[in-house]
Amino acid sequence: MSEIAEVIIKMEVAALERWNNGDPSGFLDISDEDVVYFDPMTELRIDGLKNLTALYESIRGKIFVDRYKMLNPKVQSLDRMAVLTYNLESYIENKVIKWNCTEVYQLAKDNKWRIIQTHWSLTKAVEAL
Amino acid sequence: MSEIAEVIIKMEVAALERWNNGDPSGFLDISDEDVVYFDPMTELRIDGLKNLTALYESIRGKIFVDRYKMLNPKVQSLDRMAVLTYNLESYIENKVIKWNCTEVYQLAKDNKWRIIQTHWSLTKAVEAL
Repeated sequence: MSEIAEVIIKMEVAALERWNNGDPSGFLDISDEDVVYFDPMTELRIDGLKNLTALYESIRGKIFVDRYKMLNPKVQSLDRMAVLTYNLESYIENKVIKWNCTEVYQLAKDNKWRIIQTHWSLTKAVEAL
Repeated sequence: MSEIAEVIIKMEVAALERWNNGDPSGFLDISDEDVVYFDPMTELRIDGLKNLTALYESIRGKIFVDRYKMLNPKVQSLDRMAVLTYNLESYIENKVIKWNCTEVYQLAKDNKWRIIQTHWSLTKAVEAL
């Protein structure tokens, strides 16, 4: 695995583990001011860290995931951008929720990677309809 | 709008209009060999143009969209990568299907933009559950 891939996956795992303990700040801390965001609850794309923060603060302390599996993470990187994709299984009590995830990271001017795009969706949502 | 944004959105619209007429080749023609792909029907991320082609060939001639609205397309570009996100409304007869879409384009060595990541999901899929 490339060095960039290792760095990106490590950042994502750290943010995810905080998320699974009710703390959205792991993701907020590494998201860019100009981040864009999709999840299966939003009516439209959410633009900007300010709006994403408002959404995440509304669910702080409300989501707890017992354990998770990050499946087959892949990083496609070029120059100062890196695209991380993976499938995720989140186990909450006896239930598993399966996710598709795309994160685009950008190497900012301060030489830190930050998320500029997040897309969460439910795996096989069509079957669930 | 930047010149890159214009090029990317024009490519996407052209592929989408072919898609809406049952022809997946618009997307296949501009997807990279190493493309990764999510949609709401797949069990896991699909990796590679060969596998995406197999999926798309199975639905060639089967999907027809009467009209569509691409809402608020945004392109975030840096060096040789560009992230296009938008919401999409697809009208089929009297029904509307709402989509979240993320496309990552990369400027290949032959100086053509190609898609390296596609993520389609249903808007508000959670509400639909």
